[in-house]
Amino acid sequence: MRIVNFVLILALLGIGSANAQDDKEMLKSIFDETLQHGEAYQKLDYLSNEIGGRLSGSPEAAAAVEWSKQTMKAYGFDTVFLQEVMVPHWVRGKKEIVKVTGSDIFGPMELKTCALGNSVGTGDQGVLASVVEVKDFDELKKLGKSGVAGKIVFFSRPMDPTLISTFAAYGGAVDQRAKGASEAAKLGALAVVVRSMASNDDDIPHTGGLVYEKGVKQIPGVAISTNSANYLSRALKGDANTKLYIETHCEMLPEVLSYNVIGEMTGTSKPNEYIVVGGHLDSWDLGDGAHDDGAGCVQSIEVLRTLKALNYKPKHSIRAVMYMNEENGLRGGLKYAELAKKNKEKHLAAIESDRGGFTPKGFTISGTKKAVSTLESWKELFEPYGIYDFGKPGSGADIGPLEDQGTALIGFLPDSQRYFNYHHTDADTFDKIDKRELEMGAASMAALVYLIDQHGIDGAH
Amino acid sequence: MRIVNFVLILALLGIGSANAQDDKEMLKSIFDETLQHGEAYQKLDYLSNEIGGRLSGSPEAAAAVEWSKQTMKAYGFDTVFLQEVMVPHWVRGKKEIVKVTGSDIFGPMELKTCALGNSVGTGDQGVLASVVEVKDFDELKKLGKSGVAGKIVFFSRPMDPTLISTFAAYGGAVDQRAKGASEAAKLGALAVVVRSMASNDDDIPHTGGLVYEKGVKQIPGVAISTNSANYLSRALKGDANTKLYIETHCEMLPEVLSYNVIGEMTGTSKPNEYIVVGGHLDSWDLGDGAHDDGAGCVQSIEVLRTLKALNYKPKHSIRAVMYMNEENGLRGGLKYAELAKKNKEKHLAAIESDRGGFTPKGFTISGTKKAVSTLESWKELFEPYGIYDFGKPGSGADIGPLEDQGTALIGFLPDSQRYFNYHHTDADTFDKIDKRELEMGAASMAALVYLIDQHGIDGAH
Repeated sequence: MRIVNFVLILALLGIGSANAQDDKEMLKSIFDETLQHGEAYQKLDYLSNEIGGRLSGSPEAAAAVEWSKQTMKAYGFDTVFLQEVMVPHWVRGKKEIVKVTGSDIFGPMELKTCALGNSVGTGDQGVLASVVEVKDFDELKKLGKSGVAGKIVFFSRPMDPTLISTFAAYGGAVDQRAKGASEAAKLGALAVVVRSMASNDDDIPHTGGLVYEKGVKQIPGVAISTNSANYLSRALKGDANTKLYIETHCEMLPEVLSYNVIGEMTGTSKPNEYIVVGGHLDSWDLGDGAHDDGAGCVQSIEVLRTLKALNYKPKHSIRAVMYMNEENGLRGGLKYAELAKKNKEKHLAAIESDRGGFTPKGFTISGTKKAVSTLESWKELFEPYGIYDFGKPGSGADIGPLEDQGTALIGFLPDSQRYFNYHHTDADTFDKIDKRELEMGAASMAALVYLIDQHGIDGAH
Repeated sequence: MRIVNFVLILALLGIGSANAQDDKEMLKSIFDETLQHGEAYQKLDYLSNEIGGRLSGSPEAAAAVEWSKQTMKAYGFDTVFLQEVMVPHWVRGKKEIVKVTGSDIFGPMELKTCALGNSVGTGDQGVLASVVEVKDFDELKKLGKSGVAGKIVFFSRPMDPTLISTFAAYGGAVDQRAKGASEAAKLGALAVVVRSMASNDDDIPHTGGLVYEKGVKQIPGVAISTNSANYLSRALKGDANTKLYIETHCEMLPEVLSYNVIGEMTGTSKPNEYIVVGGHLDSWDLGDGAHDDGAGCVQSIEVLRTLKALNYKPKHSIRAVMYMNEENGLRGGLKYAELAKKNKEKHLAAIESDRGGFTPKGFTISGTKKAVSTLESWKELFEPYGIYDFGKPGSGADIGPLEDQGTALIGFLPDSQRYFNYHHTDADTFDKIDKRELEMGAASMAALVYLIDQHGIDGAH
């Protein structure tokens, strides 16, 4: 009993590990290396400004695959390879038009718009119809077929500004964008217009994936900027004659061969056990995908660069994975998990950075109780770096498919206040990236990879 | 003994206060109000874009005084008044020139420069001389008069990128800017050039206050951008013939009458006891002073607006104070403390926001042990808002002079990673402000004011 208590006290005091001081020093070395010699910022400059937006199936996505491969080869990682993956190839076509018309007071007035990803287009003839505004699917269903058929449905529920996590606010509104078209089509709507998923009132439309339900008629979907959405709400209240004209030329082309890109430091004692850190290489086409998710890609490469620069020899194999097609298909994440299972690769943990290159706040996790408590136990090691939020539920889209392989799924959690000013817009460009914020994120990811490599995370290392 | 233990346990569990639930709800109301209806962002837009940079003694500073007064009157605060204060009136004059010359390899080459605030100018004739580069005052002193006299001294020590708080890095380098001119003049130098206090390598020179030591010859001081500083270092190493030409036209004019601007909600039960929240209204002339310190001013006004909107009736009088002349004299802060003492106003606490309008991380404090522990005890109330850093030492320049009046001095602590990209430069403009980040800061300040008003902070409420 005494011995048990003594061990318990040591554990409570955080001096149970003979390696605590080593860990502390290694974390300092990692942050020092990344903040002094980090190359993530210059790499992201190239990816954003020289290659640009990288929608799945586009020439830019192909260039980004080649660039990632060459970048990691030039760093001399032990292995760099590609995984073939077939991806959807959606194209936006000519600039979209959404125009308020029919009202002498509020029209004609062009709204700031963009088609939603995966949407069918209206074609040259466009869609001209009156509009019903709803806040959610319940309101929509109450209107029924008689209220919706032959009309355009306007989903206008804003992101809740009182939610401190803007991702929580996004999660509370994004069903309108993802499922609104099919829900409206079931009641005979001709098209849908969605208020942009944005934190601010401004003139920037936000695109993003629309998912058609199988067996339901595919109708066009567009987003309008938050200012345009506010205007449209006023117009609909102010004049019953208000109609909307929508013209989009987007279409889904045949699938294209693309790739996940993987760089690896091979483990010294357990080379067949993996710790993965990654982001997605594809982006939307409107901006340069600097925050979403160029940041996550260059941070993942920087994790390996940093560990290699420190001459760290990992026990397990550590991979930086650039997933393809997170935005409109998740094919890369699905393919990675499929091959991991097929090749009997044991994945201890997968970390995804896909919330922008902002100041790190911590890590979320989806895993066993043991994995959660292990992650939480490292909190004090990160506190000197202002990183304190460990263990809340959540991970990342691309790593989700690894769930049934017993992998601890971990999400990098940066400050989220600015993210939805840029997300999926033409404003997601390199000038919105801060060098130190990006580097602090990369260093925190490298630190976590190191700790998992040293101590395991689920009792099995 | 049992009773004592029971109280101790209650205290440890944080359920000692009957008002814990009230506090939690009030903080939620404050954040909701500010995030839904906050006006700090639009106020800062006006202050930055319509008034602009507000150097002490300038017409813009006078306009900012009037604007602050009118803004707070329009909000209907109980009292709005001015405090007269004489301020220095330094003017920059014609655009400065710093040119590398004398070297066929490295010159002629213009460097990106600006005069340091309070500096004397060189006049039309300029200063042309060879250059000695030093990292610190020890190196300078080792050179002695024989190594320094008749030369330009180049202080080139960078901010340490490995320090997580960029303010710590700034603190470790700013002596070169503040005291370098007098230290160099003591050894016969003709002028000083200082590497900008910046986190990044870029082309933006950072101005800031230079303080001449009494009785020492006043020589001109300029800052050059970090890229220019790197270039100059290479030139000095690469060619012994390298010289520098400096031409500045700045000068100190006679003092000018200006004002602190104060808005007050009068206390219901203790109107003669004060809680102050403030920022400084003056700024440097190069940018618009959006982060430094327009943000602190509009946040302080927003604190009162929010509490008033919630119909909160404070026990103590709560003041929003816009101090004048923090940047090159601190006259406003000194005058405020002088009048507080003269008028026998008891100041419980003073909070200053002067670290930019970024996502809040917490509050620093300079006060009694009791005040520190009281502040720390509120940490868990702020954690739902991602605010967790309470009780580290520090406060703010303008509130410092209140120290001998028993006032708890509290510094608002936002994320600091981006601040020294903009600080004291022409890049400190409104487009660098994020609305939600600014509002989160204002709400956290309002929350703290509320808690101090309800519970006191130093055992005396």
